[in-house]
Amino acid sequence: MDYEKILPEVIKKNENKILLLVLDGVGGLPHPETGKTELETANIPNLDYFAKKGSCGVIIPVLPGITPGSGPGHIALFGYDPIEIQIGRGVLECLGIGMDIKKGEIAIRGNFATIDENNIVIDRRAGRIPTEENEKLVELISRNIKEIKGVKIEIRTVKEHRCAIVLRGENLSPAVSENDPQKEGLPLVEIKPLKEEGKLTAEVLNEFERKVREILKKVNSKAKGILLRGISTLPHIPSFQEKYKLKAACIATYPMYKGISRVVGMDILETGETIEEEFETLKKYYDEYDFFFVHIKKTDSFGEDGNFMGKVKILEEIDRKIWVLKNLKFEAIAITGDHSTPSMLKSHSWHPVPLALISPNTIPDDVEKFTERDCAKGILGKLYSKEVMYLLLACSLKLGKFGA
Amino acid sequence: MDYEKILPEVIKKNENKILLLVLDGVGGLPHPETGKTELETANIPNLDYFAKKGSCGVIIPVLPGITPGSGPGHIALFGYDPIEIQIGRGVLECLGIGMDIKKGEIAIRGNFATIDENNIVIDRRAGRIPTEENEKLVELISRNIKEIKGVKIEIRTVKEHRCAIVLRGENLSPAVSENDPQKEGLPLVEIKPLKEEGKLTAEVLNEFERKVREILKKVNSKAKGILLRGISTLPHIPSFQEKYKLKAACIATYPMYKGISRVVGMDILETGETIEEEFETLKKYYDEYDFFFVHIKKTDSFGEDGNFMGKVKILEEIDRKIWVLKNLKFEAIAITGDHSTPSMLKSHSWHPVPLALISPNTIPDDVEKFTERDCAKGILGKLYSKEVMYLLLACSLKLGKFGA
Repeated sequence: MDYEKILPEVIKKNENKILLLVLDGVGGLPHPETGKTELETANIPNLDYFAKKGSCGVIIPVLPGITPGSGPGHIALFGYDPIEIQIGRGVLECLGIGMDIKKGEIAIRGNFATIDENNIVIDRRAGRIPTEENEKLVELISRNIKEIKGVKIEIRTVKEHRCAIVLRGENLSPAVSENDPQKEGLPLVEIKPLKEEGKLTAEVLNEFERKVREILKKVNSKAKGILLRGISTLPHIPSFQEKYKLKAACIATYPMYKGISRVVGMDILETGETIEEEFETLKKYYDEYDFFFVHIKKTDSFGEDGNFMGKVKILEEIDRKIWVLKNLKFEAIAITGDHSTPSMLKSHSWHPVPLALISPNTIPDDVEKFTERDCAKGILGKLYSKEVMYLLLACSLKLGKFGA
Repeated sequence: MDYEKILPEVIKKNENKILLLVLDGVGGLPHPETGKTELETANIPNLDYFAKKGSCGVIIPVLPGITPGSGPGHIALFGYDPIEIQIGRGVLECLGIGMDIKKGEIAIRGNFATIDENNIVIDRRAGRIPTEENEKLVELISRNIKEIKGVKIEIRTVKEHRCAIVLRGENLSPAVSENDPQKEGLPLVEIKPLKEEGKLTAEVLNEFERKVREILKKVNSKAKGILLRGISTLPHIPSFQEKYKLKAACIATYPMYKGISRVVGMDILETGETIEEEFETLKKYYDEYDFFFVHIKKTDSFGEDGNFMGKVKILEEIDRKIWVLKNLKFEAIAITGDHSTPSMLKSHSWHPVPLALISPNTIPDDVEKFTERDCAKGILGKLYSKEVMYLLLACSLKLGKFGA
């Protein structure tokens, strides 16, 4: 990314504070009956106030037409290239349930699967066993397998047939193949090192997988083995401190977002489950950090459920709570989302996301509402998510002159 | 192109259909007397209807300020990078007159030229001989030269002094120099291999060029030899099927556009000469394909002729015929052009081209007219042509989530 070539020359520390407020999946699509999106339907005078006060635009999470998962969505907002810096699926799965992963450790997504006596995979999801059954199996496996060849193994339930595994030890590498044949009716595949450095990891995983099958043989469950997928490790990524000279904190309620924030070196602040508690935490720690990332999850959840009015209501609730921001001094605030989650699609989407940038050092435009269509007419126009961070740094006067 | 890193992970098949309707050279410039462009002058209620119904924007064919030929213009609309993927001039010339070129074959643009007895090039265009004279020369050459060193040679008239040549055989390569001295008064240049693999091709072309001079010695024509230029071969380019999992068809009246479509693996559908017949063909084959590229040439032709009112009239004709689209179900339609061809410039131009994207999965804006200035205010803002294809795929729900 071109910014990396410039940043070391221009970045500087000062006392100004930055807030990145992410309303997860905030953007939407028009309801067919009213022609209005969730944001256009909601009564959100405070969000509108910030749109009016600031410069507006819309942001493209990755590329036009590309729908991001939470990983790329946030990595981009944090100012990294979401195509260059990809967080492995195993890492995201583990972060998503709050497992601790350090550099050099290996994170894996596991699927409990039905496997017959000839090692043929009969059902790649073991009939989607209930989460409680999964918990019992994981407990049993944890008790019986703690370490293989000096490598510590931690396994945790995600839900249904899904679990997450972390390997901890020396000389580990994600350069190994997977054991999932991808199709039912085919035999389990032996895990092989893809490079010399993957040798130990492949041995450990093959042994682990064999032992799991031994253990599950004696259990009354459709789960008879485990498919190991998304075998990955933390990406090499400069932290906020290194890259931006920022002491940064994350306020989030879901493990996934805390996890991604930890990957970029943010401190994770203890907070409660509600939006109110998140803003309380912001107030409490206000003096201690240069940069706050506040993540609000519920907008996305209602979108994913296809609950249009639920999303409208939560937007209105956020709007009421957001009032507190007017009493905290930030030199630069961005209010935006990591992607859109239109209730009409019941999923993340590719649509550009509204952005309001509030700072004394930006030009307000005539946008008066925090909506997709209004913000698209804003003075910031269309940006990439990965550019927002640099506008925040610039508006807080933390970027010096490039070149003489 | 960054899309290539993402596409294999996210592309998926479904039943939704896509239409890319290209009005060649549709954009224009204001008439000095009225201050209105061709699109602003024309009465085009149906195109306006689609602009109103959809999301609008303007597209940049290659880069701001860069005027594309038909090759880059279409390659970009097909979702390839027009700078990375260049179709050689020889290939375009041959495709333009409907010659068949396969992988490994060599396509060449030929200029009949006046060359004296000392091999000095006197006139690089042989006084722009009439097309009928060209046809007679080509007939004579074809009759006398069919094969050299086992390589089959086909020569065809383009027009005036221009002809097109295809070499077919084994071990051919475009890695050879040209024989055109570029300036009059200089001698013909010997064709040399630029790499080892170009050896045979250079030998064949030198021999061909000598034989042509022999033949033309005895003919009463200013054409006394042939300059061989744009020596090229089909680019390595993944097909629509490989890249997008799309069964794609092209409906076009001009050989050039059929040719470029064939390069990206589209089926070329038989159609007539009129816009009406092109839409009839679309209806007829509607069930058989996932993706249709419909190309309308006449907008460009009138622009190239500097015929402002002719272009206005053809826009109005297209507008009447386009009505049929309302009765065909497409999940995503893009109506746009490959570039602008302002009548005022009598040539292709660099100006961004209006785009209307119609889909239930996009946000309509308040653009009410399909013109340069109105579409520029649309919610899609300014895009690159190469991004349009990904919006079509996204809007037809053929792109899954990138990253977890």
